[in-house]
This record gives sequence, C-alpha cells and structure tokens, in this order.
Amino acid sequence: MIEPDASRAPNRLTATEAAALISAGRLSSSTLVQSCLDRVALREPTVHAWANIDPAAAMNEARARDADAPRGPLHGIPVAVKDVIDVAGVPTGMGSRIYDGYVPFADAACVAALRSAGAVILGKTVTAEFAGVAPGPTTHPAAPDRTPGGSSSGSAAAVADHMVPVALGTQTGGSIIRPAAFCGVVGFKPSFGTINRAGLKLAAESFDTIGMMARDVDDVALIWRVLVGAGATSLQAPETSPRLLVFRGHQWDRAALETVSAISQTVRRLRERGAQVEELPVPDGFAELSKARVVINGYERARALAWELQHHAEQLSGAMLRVVDNGWAYSYDSYLAAVRLVESWRVRMADIIGAHDAILTAAVNGEAPMGLASTGDASFQEIWSLLHLPAITLPLATGPSGLPVGVQLAGRRLDDARLLQLAKWALNICTPPSPFESTDTGSS
Amino acid sequence: MIEPDASRAPNRLTATEAAALISAGRLSSSTLVQSCLDRVALREPTVHAWANIDPAAAMNEARARDADAPRGPLHGIPVAVKDVIDVAGVPTGMGSRIYDGYVPFADAACVAALRSAGAVILGKTVTAEFAGVAPGPTTHPAAPDRTPGGSSSGSAAAVADHMVPVALGTQTGGSIIRPAAFCGVVGFKPSFGTINRAGLKLAAESFDTIGMMARDVDDVALIWRVLVGAGATSLQAPETSPRLLVFRGHQWDRAALETVSAISQTVRRLRERGAQVEELPVPDGFAELSKARVVINGYERARALAWELQHHAEQLSGAMLRVVDNGWAYSYDSYLAAVRLVESWRVRMADIIGAHDAILTAAVNGEAPMGLASTGDASFQEIWSLLHLPAITLPLATGPSGLPVGVQLAGRRLDDARLLQLAKWALNICTPPSPFESTDTGSS
Repeated sequence: MIEPDASRAPNRLTATEAAALISAGRLSSSTLVQSCLDRVALREPTVHAWANIDPAAAMNEARARDADAPRGPLHGIPVAVKDVIDVAGVPTGMGSRIYDGYVPFADAACVAALRSAGAVILGKTVTAEFAGVAPGPTTHPAAPDRTPGGSSSGSAAAVADHMVPVALGTQTGGSIIRPAAFCGVVGFKPSFGTINRAGLKLAAESFDTIGMMARDVDDVALIWRVLVGAGATSLQAPETSPRLLVFRGHQWDRAALETVSAISQTVRRLRERGAQVEELPVPDGFAELSKARVVINGYERARALAWELQHHAEQLSGAMLRVVDNGWAYSYDSYLAAVRLVESWRVRMADIIGAHDAILTAAVNGEAPMGLASTGDASFQEIWSLLHLPAITLPLATGPSGLPVGVQLAGRRLDDARLLQLAKWALNICTPPSPFESTDTGSS
Repeated sequence: MIEPDASRAPNRLTATEAAALISAGRLSSSTLVQSCLDRVALREPTVHAWANIDPAAAMNEARARDADAPRGPLHGIPVAVKDVIDVAGVPTGMGSRIYDGYVPFADAACVAALRSAGAVILGKTVTAEFAGVAPGPTTHPAAPDRTPGGSSSGSAAAVADHMVPVALGTQTGGSIIRPAAFCGVVGFKPSFGTINRAGLKLAAESFDTIGMMARDVDDVALIWRVLVGAGATSLQAPETSPRLLVFRGHQWDRAALETVSAISQTVRRLRERGAQVEELPVPDGFAELSKARVVINGYERARALAWELQHHAEQLSGAMLRVVDNGWAYSYDSYLAAVRLVESWRVRMADIIGAHDAILTAAVNGEAPMGLASTGDASFQEIWSLLHLPAITLPLATGPSGLPVGVQLAGRRLDDARLLQLAKWALNICTPPSPFESTDTGSS
C-alpha cells in the first residue's frame, strides 16, 4: 500500500487511505468528518448535492467513533446515502414533496451494514424523483450549468467534489453508472440481487440494485466487501492476461465522438498492456431488449407508485406521470412477454461472455450535456441493469469541454470480485483525467 | 355463474359472490363488513387471527364504498392484509415487539391496488415474527390446540373461519401454502417477481412473494387479477386434457399417511376425469436445492434484519437469532455458489416441466400438528418458492383427525393463468372436505 500523505486535506483522502490513517491513530474521524463538512459548506451552494445533512449529528457520530474501539473496516469513515434509502430517524425525501414528513423507523439493511463496519452516515444525497428521470437541484461539480447525471445525482457530485469519499447509490436503468461517468468518479453496480434491498424504496424491482461510488476502485471494493460480507482481501493484478469483449452495441449511433474515441483509446491501451480484446458483434435480436426494458420498467414503476398516484398525483412530475401512465397501459400479457424475453437473454449472455472476463463498452454517450432539466441518456447503462450483470464505470477519458467520459466494464454475473480486480488494473494502466483540480479552492 | 344465495350470512359468501351481490344492489358493503366483524367478535378470542383490527374504521370505509360509485371488481369487499405489508396510518407489527410504534407513511403497492379496485382493508393479520418461524398467537380455527401453520397464520385462519373472504399473505419458504393447506383454504403463491413488493418488509428477497388466500379458486384469481392487472376473464375449464407430472420429491419420507393417500387419491380422480398424469422421478442433484435454500435464506434474512440485530437483538426470538447467526456465518462465496446452483435449476425446471401444465405434489407433510410452538414443516412448499414457480394448494383431503390436508399444484413459471384454470377444474371435480361446519355457531 502507498503510504497516504497525512498532510493532504483529509476530505481529499480516499476511504481506504483515511481508514488506514484512523486505524494507525494518525487521523481522527472528527477531523475527517469536519474536513468533509467544511467542503460541503464551501461547495454546497453551487453543487446542491445534499437532500439532508446535519453537521452537528455527523460530528457527534464521528466523536463517538473516535471514543469507540474500532468496529470494522470503515471505522470513522463518512459515507453519503442516496435519499431513496432509509436511515433511521432521518427524513427520506425520495426527491418528491409527497414524502415531506416521512421519517423512517429503521435503517435500511445496507446502512446498518455500513454502521456495523464503523461508518459515519454523513447525510442523504439528492436523488431524481423516486430514482426516476425528474432531476433534483444538483449541478455538475466541474460545470454548474450541466447535469451531474442521475438519478444518483447527489452521490456522484458529492464524491466527485470531495465532499465525501464514498456514497451509496441505486441503479434501475443507469442511475449509478451515468452520474458517476459524467462526474468522473468510479461507479459500481453489483450483480443484481447481491446487495440487500430492505429499506430501499423500490422503483422497478426487477432491476433495482444498490451500488456505490468513490474516487477509486479500492474504495468501491471496500464498501462492496462490507455490504456482501466478502473477505477483506485487496485487489491483486490479474494473474493471467485479461480477456475482454469490446461491445459497441445496437445504439452506437448515439455515441458522441468523445465516447467513440474513449473506447478505441482504451482498447489500444489495454492491448498494449497485454489484454486480449475481441469485438463482440451485436447479437441477433439484442435490440428487442431495449423495448422489453421500457415495458418492464413502466409496468413495475407504475405499481410501485400506486399509492403515490392515488393520493398525490398532482405532486408527481409530468415526466413521472408519463412513465406511470404508460406503465398502467401495458397489459399483463405484454409484461410477461417482456419478462420471458429478458429472462432468456440473461441465460444467453452467460454463453456470449463465455470465458471472457468482461465486456468493455461505453458508460455514457458523451460528456455531461448542458442544462439541468434532464439527467442524460440511459441507453448505454440500462442494458446491463436489465441483464443483471455487474458493471463499473472508470474515468478514463474526457470530452471536448474537458469533462469526464466514463468507460464501462460489465462482468460475468455473480463474478463481481473479478470485475473489480480487472477494473483496478485497467484504471491503473490508463491515466485518468483530473478535471476537478480547477474547482479546488485552498485546503478544503 | 351460480346465483349467490343472499339469505346466507354475508360473511360466508365468497368475494366473487359478494361482489356480484353488491354490484347488483342486493348487498351493501356495510352489511358485509359488519357480518365479518361480528364473526371476528365471536371467534377472535379463540382464533387470534388479527394483529390489528379497527371495527369503526372498517365500517367507515365500508360506508364510504356504499356511498361511492363502483370503483372496480372488489368494490366494498373486505380484505385482510398480513402484518408485514404496510397499510398507511395503521401500525405494521411484523410479529415483533421491535416494531411497536411503527406506523407506515404509505400503502404498500399491493394494498393501493386493492383499494383502487374498491376493497375495504378489514385489518392486519397475525404473522410469525418477520415472516419467519417464531409463531404468533393464532390457533387453528378447527382445532385450537393446533398450529394454523405460518408465517401467514392469521390470513389463513381468518379466511378459513369466515372472518374475511380473502387475505393477502407472503411466502418466502412455505408461508402461504402451508397455513392455507392446514386451514383448508385455497392458497396461491404467484410466480416470483410478478406481484409488486413496494411496502413489504423483505425477509429473503430472492424468494419473497406476495400471494393470496380465499375459500375458492375464483376468489384467489379475482385478487390476483387486480394485483397484476390481468383482464377480468373468468376461469374456463381446460379445453384440452390437462397434462400433469406427479412428484413425490426427495423428502417423501416426511409425508404422513394422509399426505401419501391425498396424492394417490387425487391422481386417481384426475385420471378418471381425463387428466394425463405421469410420474416425475426426483431429478439427479435435486436434493442439493434444499441445502442451497438454507444458505440463501439465512444469508439474506440476516442482512434484511441487520438493523434489528444491531439495536434490538434481545427482542428477537431464539429461533430467529439462530437463523440470523447462521446467516451471518455463511461466506459470500457459499452464498454465490448457492445462488448459481439455484439459478441453473430455474432454467432446468422449464425443460423438466416441458409441455406439462403443472406438477402435482403434496402441499404439506400431513394435517396440522398439535401445539402452537411451531408452524410446521416447510419441506413440501419451499422448493417451489426457490424455483420461482407459481404454486397453489387446494383443500382436497383430510387427515386422521378430520383436519384438512392440501394438495399442491406448481405451474410453469409466468403461466399463472393456466395454473389457476387447472386448479379450479381440479377443485371442482374433487369433493373438498368441510371441516369448519362443526365450529359454526349460528348466523355468523
């Protein structure tokens, strides 16, 4: 391990670095949390990453950790939680006025797991309305006139902006990968079903997956290990030459130049470092999956929001009302046909990936678009959510405005450990951009 | 349709009959609900089916339905809801003191769907602790010294005892099929993933399925259609000769004589009425599924109860603490191995069932056992939950004490409509027992 530089502002440390310093008695949780809170105070008026943050409560938690015996691998580490995930006693806003006044009784399973490992819950981060398409107020930390992506907008922005080292997000379509890719952080959506969802407001439950964002792969792996209970082994370089499939997909006409070149460049770099990279042509019938996704997403979201629609329809956004109305219009038979198609493709994908380690593909169609009215295009993320594969985005390229463009690796189902290992290797050998240095102001 | 007998006590009508009478202006929701409440008042001191019931609130809802224009197919029909499913403003107890004081903010998706169709939520029914193994106070309505089964104990007992025509339950292992079979009602667990779980407390989310209980197949089909949004077609007799596989399973040594004979008798009757019934031998390796189930169930339940364990361990039952402790002891790798095995069997089962309509198998190992300390043996139910198949139990036989013994049909995944059709046909041609007439006292 590289010895962390204790003279760096604590909020700029990774969680892995900070945990090592805390464990060695060279950093206190209170110092770390205060440094994050200072950064929040400085930047929040521009970034609007937080739905709910209580500095005094966070500092109390940090002081309690400092007084405690070490609990686990996250002892004293601040973590942000997307505001569709319950934290006991703290409002969950769901990105909707409908939930004004809702205060959860219990922690979500994932939050309880973080606390068991010693984490300090720093606050709740802005989500698009019900983890859907209608954005909250969050801006892109490097370009406040642009969307940070969504629906895990606040989580991505807060991590990118050094307000917190790690954050939980959720992905139904592209809600972790897209904002992480736009903001230039690492975003990881684990294999469907492996991160417990008790205490999560469901969106489309066939796809909903809890995941994490951080500024490096070690940190997402650290949080992931805590949540699944995997052993605390560090990520070794692959022992054999990685075998990748590069996939440009059935929607490649949506890719901007920076995405096209990000993929070509990454393929070249990885080949130079010994990876075997083959082209994966678009399988016959693959485009049908995008249509099936729309049906399943709409059918399930409409039902998950049945109470909200009955009692508070006037407080749902127009965008959500359209999704919900379409969802109620799909027949049960059309839903079943979509589910059958998707289930058969989940099985076929295992054969298609075969002995390859992962699929290398675009994370986003380009850098974050201008404006805050949309969180961007989900085309390049949603297919992997649908297929239940683990997926990770790495900040490997930049676009014409100097903003990040992610490159995505989608792994074999349930082989998340291998994907993380591969992602660390890929991030190490490709030089990441650092677009945020320009927004840095002094020690916080 | 058979013209319902309006002179029968309203609480003894099926939901389908009552809905027809209400729709024809020959019965009011208030009369029906009052009749159910009278039955509750009479029998609850013995049966203890209800975790929470507010007669005045239910009557207010019924009167509101009587004043309303018809909303949908359940207009004015009382429905019971298992106490792990949220009803806005009414405590959800989860069968645990830990949730004392918890009042949900919103209706669960399934409850909102029932209300949209005009249902009156009569009350919350007793669940085993967190839909697990530690029973609540509910007794078997026909034999108060015996378990009604669980974990949907109150739902099954309330329906069997004519306190309510239909109830929602949930099944993770055998929590709908077992109590329904013990109590002599129809219990239906739909295909996994098809009934929206927003607002359900998760137990083991790979298996958790919301389902329904009623006193006939038409009623479970009625509720099911409302929840999935299927068309309101009635259940026709099968046009072609039903093709069944009879499966005695890898745990057949657990079957009591009454279960062995229930299956043989049912096979004989169905063959007499033209069904083709073939024997399905236990597939090689099938027994491994039961071991995998224990791992997945424990791993997921432990995580879903992480907050409860952290803050209220002393209020968890000994039985649940054992499940949770075992769950935390399983490694992530052993969980993955179990999930991989089960996922491969879900695919194989489609081939095994092939063109057959359903698997005919035992619902329970025998009639309800003596005592209230255990809810009985889940062996004959849990395998179908694990495989994500739809399953239904029919009260087709009785045991040595005259108590019901269910017979189970497990259908093709996502072909719930066909299973319901087949179940109605099977129930019609086999004479069901009527063990509850003996406990009947007068008009309610």
